[in-house]
Amino acid sequence: MEIKSTANQRVKNWKKLALKKERKKQNKYLLDGLHLVKEALKSKERILEILVAESFNFIDELNIPKEIEIVNISNEVAKVISQTPSPQGIFAVLELPQINKNLKLDDGAWLMLDGVQDPGNIGTMVRTADAAGFKGVFIGKGSADIYNPKLVRSMQGSQFHIKVVEGDVLEGIELMNQKGWPVFGSELNDEAKNYSEVGKFDNFGLVMGNEGNGMSKEALSKTTDNLYIPIKGQAESLNVAVAAGILMFTLKK
Amino acid sequence: MEIKSTANQRVKNWKKLALKKERKKQNKYLLDGLHLVKEALKSKERILEILVAESFNFIDELNIPKEIEIVNISNEVAKVISQTPSPQGIFAVLELPQINKNLKLDDGAWLMLDGVQDPGNIGTMVRTADAAGFKGVFIGKGSADIYNPKLVRSMQGSQFHIKVVEGDVLEGIELMNQKGWPVFGSELNDEAKNYSEVGKFDNFGLVMGNEGNGMSKEALSKTTDNLYIPIKGQAESLNVAVAAGILMFTLKK
Repeated sequence: MEIKSTANQRVKNWKKLALKKERKKQNKYLLDGLHLVKEALKSKERILEILVAESFNFIDELNIPKEIEIVNISNEVAKVISQTPSPQGIFAVLELPQINKNLKLDDGAWLMLDGVQDPGNIGTMVRTADAAGFKGVFIGKGSADIYNPKLVRSMQGSQFHIKVVEGDVLEGIELMNQKGWPVFGSELNDEAKNYSEVGKFDNFGLVMGNEGNGMSKEALSKTTDNLYIPIKGQAESLNVAVAAGILMFTLKK
Repeated sequence: MEIKSTANQRVKNWKKLALKKERKKQNKYLLDGLHLVKEALKSKERILEILVAESFNFIDELNIPKEIEIVNISNEVAKVISQTPSPQGIFAVLELPQINKNLKLDDGAWLMLDGVQDPGNIGTMVRTADAAGFKGVFIGKGSADIYNPKLVRSMQGSQFHIKVVEGDVLEGIELMNQKGWPVFGSELNDEAKNYSEVGKFDNFGLVMGNEGNGMSKEALSKTTDNLYIPIKGQAESLNVAVAAGILMFTLKK
């Protein structure tokens, strides 16, 4: 199969996958770039098609199973469907993973995002949670969509390594409370503890809040402890993904 | 002074400040947003003019000294000169700080960037270095320009709190070696040490490398030790700004 024209209907549909509404409608999302396509091929996720631009010369590196459709596309088509200024020319279209309606948290460490907005920050935190040995990331309502192109890019394929679930943060915290796990908030208040003095844990939750407004009051009231990272200079705060990285690597046993 | 037309020559000049060549030529750079303008007013840097859009309602919060020219601009002009989709409508034009040709490193902790490319990563690292109590950040040749709009946005004003200098990373490391300070690289190799086992320091250097290729071989050969952050999951690496945050907060006494 070969598609050279940017006016082709399939090209239009791939381009629309940049929008959440269209991802839901088509039940698909797009991976852009060699590293992500490799990660998808290593995973058990269902790949619907792989798109290869004329300029892409590394097809032999990929070992694409016969049952996956390969579509050869022009460099113009690659430019149109990519969200990056210089696409590598290799894409995969994946089925959206099914959402499990019954919230279940396997034993392990969980990062919970309470209203974090920036897709790049969220993706970086999923990648860091993977590196820190976390079981998964719980993305609360009101955060950016997991399959947003920028978020997918900054996750670097970590959605294939750890669980990434969407749901209500308060429900998630309550479930952890029932299991007797500590749940750590990350807001500076009078009772907040220095993050480096609480120890290391196997099973726990860590909640990171919105970039500007922090965690919701309700979530804060349900945490076991709130932690702060002492600021030694004059910066008012840390970037949320940097703060999450410091906390995750310090708290995880 | 009031400027309503986007065709005005001063507007064109402000817009051009998004480009490094033009910043050098005009010897100016642009700050965009309330937080950054406040930080500039608190600092001792020379502010050439402050631009206020019609829609901006917080001018009373700013206490602008009488000697600084205020230019009232239309919302259209604000849109044209801003690099963000919804500008806050407040800008400051600053003189570019003079570059001191004689490299001098004051006592303290220094972050050194060896070929880091992404402006957002660099800005976040400067902000984190500020928060961690570092003396300054040394930006090696081949990294993005400090006054790139995206970099300025992610620094969040930390350039007014700590030193941000440009220069040759090898020279910087040699200067530290002469002073007898430890210089830590951040590349995984056979002799690399676990970052959490080297202790805490007052005066030292920490070198972070390029996002894809890491540090240069020459820089690596001049470090005291190379440190690694153990990866527990399946992620191949950490985002450079997250890794730098973990290392800075762990190493700084």
